[in-house]
Amino acid sequence: MTKSVRSILKLKSRFTVNGSLWIECNGERFFGPGPMELLERIAESGSISQAAKSMEMSYKKAWELINRLNAVAATPLVTTSPGGKDGGGSVVSEEAQELINAYRKMREAFATFLQKQTIAFNNR
Amino acid sequence: MTKSVRSILKLKSRFTVNGSLWIECNGERFFGPGPMELLERIAESGSISQAAKSMEMSYKKAWELINRLNAVAATPLVTTSPGGKDGGGSVVSEEAQELINAYRKMREAFATFLQKQTIAFNNR
Repeated sequence: MTKSVRSILKLKSRFTVNGSLWIECNGERFFGPGPMELLERIAESGSISQAAKSMEMSYKKAWELINRLNAVAATPLVTTSPGGKDGGGSVVSEEAQELINAYRKMREAFATFLQKQTIAFNNR
Repeated sequence: MTKSVRSILKLKSRFTVNGSLWIECNGERFFGPGPMELLERIAESGSISQAAKSMEMSYKKAWELINRLNAVAATPLVTTSPGGKDGGGSVVSEEAQELINAYRKMREAFATFLQKQTIAFNNR
């Protein structure tokens, strides 16, 4: 006879199913929680360096993410106009916003999936 | 008018939604792809050190994973009988097999979820 999974685990502990979700282009990750947060902070501050700093990401890493995003897009998702060190300011395109929205919807569906799996696991 | 997400991305690239899935106990990850593979290899070889070696995991890391597994279980999921360096052999309990099965089912559902999300993303 097979035991229920829940019965083999400690009674008073709380078990949850969790995970992460990202989008790949030709098998390589290019969009997930990090890039989304970075884009949102750039849109807010108009500055890549400020956005990176506010989320404790290196300026180099931020540029890597942006270059990867721009490389998969038909038109750049982040544009920087000339100016000082950080350019005259960085702009997150409407297209990037569409990508953020699509990813957000995906994450909402994922949250529902995780909830269902958590319930199933605890009743298995 | 909002553009479709697919139209803002390079035409000839292949986009897929991917992710990872794990189980937490009181907010801390204790089971996922790594522990599952380790348990399967211990069950196969009867040896923790051999199992760890075969998946290029350190012996220390393998023990950390096993201790974490045993800590959340009502009865140990891996038992090692006395003997040489690696004990007289390590046994993966039936209960551990139940956990593996539950996780495998979860991952099948997740694969279906990812497929659906990939289709939705490419048609959005």
